[in-house]
Amino acid sequence: MTRFATTSKYPMISWEEAWAIVAKTVTPLAPSPVGLLGLHDLVLAEDIVAARNMPPFAASKMDGYAVIADAGTSARRVLGEQDAGNMLDVEVTPGTTVRIMTGAPLPKGADAVIPVEQTSETDGIMHPQRAVRPHEQVRLAGQDIAIGDLVIAKGTVLGAAEIGLLAMVGRAEALAHPRPRVAVMATGDELVPPGEPLAPGQIHDSNSYALCAAVQAAGGIARRIDRSIDNEDSLREALLGAVTDADLVITSGGVSMGTRDLLKPVLASLGTVHFGWVAIRPGKPLTFATIQGVPVFSLPGFPVSSLVTFENTVRPALRIMAGHKALWRPKVEACLSHSVRH
Amino acid sequence: MTRFATTSKYPMISWEEAWAIVAKTVTPLAPSPVGLLGLHDLVLAEDIVAARNMPPFAASKMDGYAVIADAGTSARRVLGEQDAGNMLDVEVTPGTTVRIMTGAPLPKGADAVIPVEQTSETDGIMHPQRAVRPHEQVRLAGQDIAIGDLVIAKGTVLGAAEIGLLAMVGRAEALAHPRPRVAVMATGDELVPPGEPLAPGQIHDSNSYALCAAVQAAGGIARRIDRSIDNEDSLREALLGAVTDADLVITSGGVSMGTRDLLKPVLASLGTVHFGWVAIRPGKPLTFATIQGVPVFSLPGFPVSSLVTFENTVRPALRIMAGHKALWRPKVEACLSHSVRH
Repeated sequence: MTRFATTSKYPMISWEEAWAIVAKTVTPLAPSPVGLLGLHDLVLAEDIVAARNMPPFAASKMDGYAVIADAGTSARRVLGEQDAGNMLDVEVTPGTTVRIMTGAPLPKGADAVIPVEQTSETDGIMHPQRAVRPHEQVRLAGQDIAIGDLVIAKGTVLGAAEIGLLAMVGRAEALAHPRPRVAVMATGDELVPPGEPLAPGQIHDSNSYALCAAVQAAGGIARRIDRSIDNEDSLREALLGAVTDADLVITSGGVSMGTRDLLKPVLASLGTVHFGWVAIRPGKPLTFATIQGVPVFSLPGFPVSSLVTFENTVRPALRIMAGHKALWRPKVEACLSHSVRH
Repeated sequence: MTRFATTSKYPMISWEEAWAIVAKTVTPLAPSPVGLLGLHDLVLAEDIVAARNMPPFAASKMDGYAVIADAGTSARRVLGEQDAGNMLDVEVTPGTTVRIMTGAPLPKGADAVIPVEQTSETDGIMHPQRAVRPHEQVRLAGQDIAIGDLVIAKGTVLGAAEIGLLAMVGRAEALAHPRPRVAVMATGDELVPPGEPLAPGQIHDSNSYALCAAVQAAGGIARRIDRSIDNEDSLREALLGAVTDADLVITSGGVSMGTRDLLKPVLASLGTVHFGWVAIRPGKPLTFATIQGVPVFSLPGFPVSSLVTFENTVRPALRIMAGHKALWRPKVEACLSHSVRH
């Protein structure tokens, strides 16, 4: 008797139906506090509200002299020098001034800065070359960010500028969705690790490496599981091991309708198979299951099919887990300027 | 006497001149062998030439029956079953056939496969529903990749598909330019780490965190150096430490013309300052030096200036080091659909 199966025991569904099932099953990973150096490319899971003003004090925009603004150009006696970082204990009064560095806090009394280029100083007396208006060359306290401002909204993807902002408002860490940990396993007795010699009928495992790279590109942390021989027990053991410390599991191979395609029955015995046959090409045997609540995507073994189904179904699922609102790549319309061949 | 400097001792040069100096100084990092799981997003530093055919043997594209093609639909006796992974020791002759799984090697004698859906099998006899032509449903040996083919060219940025190809042709590792190791240090006595309280006149260090994220986004490995108090000795020590285990060093702050801007003299005492004043805004004080052959970029301390100069000068330098040919972001022309304000 032939052991071929010519139809799947799973009904064929459209990709849209399949995606609806995935989108209903996969949820964002629980947020946890992450330090500034680990936040790059993560999705923020809290609103960041300013707890203080930025700048926290009125500060000079230029190297120059802190003065009380007036309409004239009268000389002023230099009381001292205000660096960034420590407050000089003086008060600027009419007729006096303090040398000030870019970014340094405006000394008590002063309300404007005359840039050094527009002054001269001799024997402790500064001569301005022009009059100065109040707040000239001054960043006022709270000018950039005021207390209570929403600095970064929940759901924002954190890049360099956002991480700088977090630091600026004093946050050493923020709540973010972690990177999904993804276990990747290729199945198939014919597979041999790259670098080892091939016996007749064998090929090198390439899918697990390609899929690990695709997981990394999608912002996940990939862990490759060494291929197990294709029998029910070893597949069962490998899958149970994978779901214990992964947020998502990807297998490749073992899902078409050949004799040795043991994977679907093993998935069904360990958990729930949500679909096992999708009307897409390549990728018809694309299978989606959950084991102990962990999503398992079983992709076809043909290398192109495995990467294509990763791209159109697993990647957006990973983006849901990472907290992204934008699940799909941007679409760009383009015209070929030359013909292409297969 | 005032300690202000109102002109830089370095001549002001254009950004184009500055970039020409950087591009002449910075070189790709020496390639080293990297395992498949670490290759994602690296630049390949060797041509990959196929050492064998892919597929290595003629293989079935479908689940079906391996036969000798002929014009008729005569019944064939089933000799056995050919899985992927181990060669069946039989020879297909006229009037006989072997069950075969997708991807499995074609048994000796056979030259075509009839898909299982177009057959019926009873009592060990297979009845084809149609005639079959030679090579039907067969991937010939070397059809995808033939011995001697250039599989991936030197200089290619390795993504999931390329890493899969490397594995497919049996490579467990490949020569690639490593990720640049980048030390990042913010200078300024007024800086306090995020999470710690601020005294009057102090602000939180944000640049070192933003720049570390920018380095990560550019494909580098960022190491933040804890801010040192702004005096010549501590800066000298921090810089000498940084160049010993980094491929590139970034500092922020301490390069404008204020009293406390000690960085340029320290850089000059430790190595060569190639430029220290560039006609760009923001970013005029952008400084580029080498210490013991290691490039050092000293960016202005104002957060926007530091990220902008990173983007337009440090990022392309990092891409040179990582072996990229494409140094600049793609340019896209766009129209604003609404007005924007500062």
